[in-house]
Amino acid sequence: MREASKTVQVDGKFVMHRGGFLESPTIAYETWGELKGKGENAIVLFTGLSPSAHASSSPGNPSAGWWEDMIGSGLPLDSDKYFIICINSLGSCYGSTGPASENPSTGEIYRTKFPVLTLEDVAEGGYEVIRALGLEKVHTTIGCSMGGMTALAFCVRHPELGGGLISISSATRALPFSIAIRSLQREMIVKDPKWNNGNYDLADPPVVGQRLARKLGMMTYRSPREWEQRFGRERISLEMHSDEQFFGDFAVESYLENHANRFTGQFDANCYLYLSRASDLFDFAEHGGSLAAGFKKLNLERAMVIGVETDLLFPVRQQDELAKGLAEVIPDTEFVHLDCIKGHDSFLVEMDAFRPVISRYFDPN
Amino acid sequence: MREASKTVQVDGKFVMHRGGFLESPTIAYETWGELKGKGENAIVLFTGLSPSAHASSSPGNPSAGWWEDMIGSGLPLDSDKYFIICINSLGSCYGSTGPASENPSTGEIYRTKFPVLTLEDVAEGGYEVIRALGLEKVHTTIGCSMGGMTALAFCVRHPELGGGLISISSATRALPFSIAIRSLQREMIVKDPKWNNGNYDLADPPVVGQRLARKLGMMTYRSPREWEQRFGRERISLEMHSDEQFFGDFAVESYLENHANRFTGQFDANCYLYLSRASDLFDFAEHGGSLAAGFKKLNLERAMVIGVETDLLFPVRQQDELAKGLAEVIPDTEFVHLDCIKGHDSFLVEMDAFRPVISRYFDPN
Repeated sequence: MREASKTVQVDGKFVMHRGGFLESPTIAYETWGELKGKGENAIVLFTGLSPSAHASSSPGNPSAGWWEDMIGSGLPLDSDKYFIICINSLGSCYGSTGPASENPSTGEIYRTKFPVLTLEDVAEGGYEVIRALGLEKVHTTIGCSMGGMTALAFCVRHPELGGGLISISSATRALPFSIAIRSLQREMIVKDPKWNNGNYDLADPPVVGQRLARKLGMMTYRSPREWEQRFGRERISLEMHSDEQFFGDFAVESYLENHANRFTGQFDANCYLYLSRASDLFDFAEHGGSLAAGFKKLNLERAMVIGVETDLLFPVRQQDELAKGLAEVIPDTEFVHLDCIKGHDSFLVEMDAFRPVISRYFDPN
Repeated sequence: MREASKTVQVDGKFVMHRGGFLESPTIAYETWGELKGKGENAIVLFTGLSPSAHASSSPGNPSAGWWEDMIGSGLPLDSDKYFIICINSLGSCYGSTGPASENPSTGEIYRTKFPVLTLEDVAEGGYEVIRALGLEKVHTTIGCSMGGMTALAFCVRHPELGGGLISISSATRALPFSIAIRSLQREMIVKDPKWNNGNYDLADPPVVGQRLARKLGMMTYRSPREWEQRFGRERISLEMHSDEQFFGDFAVESYLENHANRFTGQFDANCYLYLSRASDLFDFAEHGGSLAAGFKKLNLERAMVIGVETDLLFPVRQQDELAKGLAEVIPDTEFVHLDCIKGHDSFLVEMDAFRPVISRYFDPN
């Protein structure tokens, strides 16, 4: 799953949005279905911070993807009808060039010498794939979480591609509470002595900081209400810490421990720092000087904004704001407010709530 | 402010709720006003996790206290009428015996050899003060945040004292989300190499972990809505970190940094671990086998539960649950739901909202 099945290599310099450049970066992606025409049936999918381009299984990679129940024959993103392209974000470590990649000019791993990453750069990485595939238009751009902001950047910078937009649990920009959470996650990693200014031993990365950051992440990806139903004050008799006096016997603590264990070693620490910071930096208002001016630059036929009531990271009021802004310029804009209890992560785990909504977008009759 | 102005020393062994004992512990407290009779005008105040007993200025200590605008002549807790006693929690480091104190039996600092601390023990520490002052009844017990749970423990264990109860931004027990937050805060400290299994150099404590924990604390003490109004996406040009690429230029990051700076060095790390864990362990249902059984054991004349809409740590639905449970056994129970935006900390900073409510309790006409 580390390597997406296809890659595009940019020819020459890739100029970064906030300065600097990358020499011939690679963008990894995966596709499902067959392309028709110049992109009339193309769906471009931008991911959240940590997923790879492996959104669903395929003959070349039969392992389950992160949106397995959404993409495929007869599913809402129907590979019998559509050509679905999932982009691995520039800056990630699943095939696309990022801080964990070797700089071809120096032969060294970029680490913190990678230029400042923005979601505009991630969007342009996606555009390199679109261009390499020869597409002149797209049917719909979809973005989940961070990917929703990337999708906005993609649509505002490439109005010529037209089509529609589905934004899922995202926003026009991060709120201070979300910035605070991500900033603290980054600080946990950077303050781990093993981070070593980004020059950590790849065989001995700053796992302590990464685990703490992952636990805080899980708290903001789910919801207090879900955990109340799921765990209550249930205790376990697991001994996880030598200092068990302070920890570990509540079921919710064990759950977080297990999640941290699963994530550890999967994601490069520097890549995480860059993508997390890119999420904070994004502000759609920079595209024109105000949100309204940014929306006016869009050239979209339709839009759908899906938000979840219990989302702590991208609160539903932000998604309402996005939907209202889009509706000012795109008459066919729908805002779907879902009452899922699993918080920000609902789009990954509450498929029975999300599938009908996405199906309705693609097959409204 | 480190030392409360008065102390009680327990005579002999103080048996702890979950086993073990302390040898002649000290409980620090402060008082305002004059005692009348056997406690007819006594107000007992239990604090949140970190405050000292210095809730308000006094002739002996003119510096401002943590509830300066609530306690004093003509204020809601009126020192002209009432005898107000604020208890420094057992386990704290502001005069009461805690993990940072010397064990008189060994001459060594307790550190992690301090027995498991519960809020029942903190309540009993308060009772030692009441007994030493010769009180046989109290007018009202008040607890804020963690202190609200301590107050419940105090009232259920000492029904003979009677009187009323005011619970502010508290609950009958912690929810899994709150447990997760506090557990992660403790882990941040314990994973700081300088913690050293609790045997840190007192001149060089685990400040990195303590700062991270404080920042996460601030996120849960305030509210996303307040920060949105207060900070938006404001940027500063402060250079706080050498790794400024990943941090520090958003106003909200600077705010958290300043709060972490102010807290650092003030609170002993082991004391924090014990009190934080005690908050997770408390469950009022243990007093009788169920919440309802616990409520039935109370002998209170009146109760008031005050909750804040934006509280993330003790959500208002928990306070509603507490109020309903109290109302089952105490007809004169009032639930006051305040629409403050400053979250859990509102009782410390939104005095214009809290003062009239508390005044009404003490002077209903």
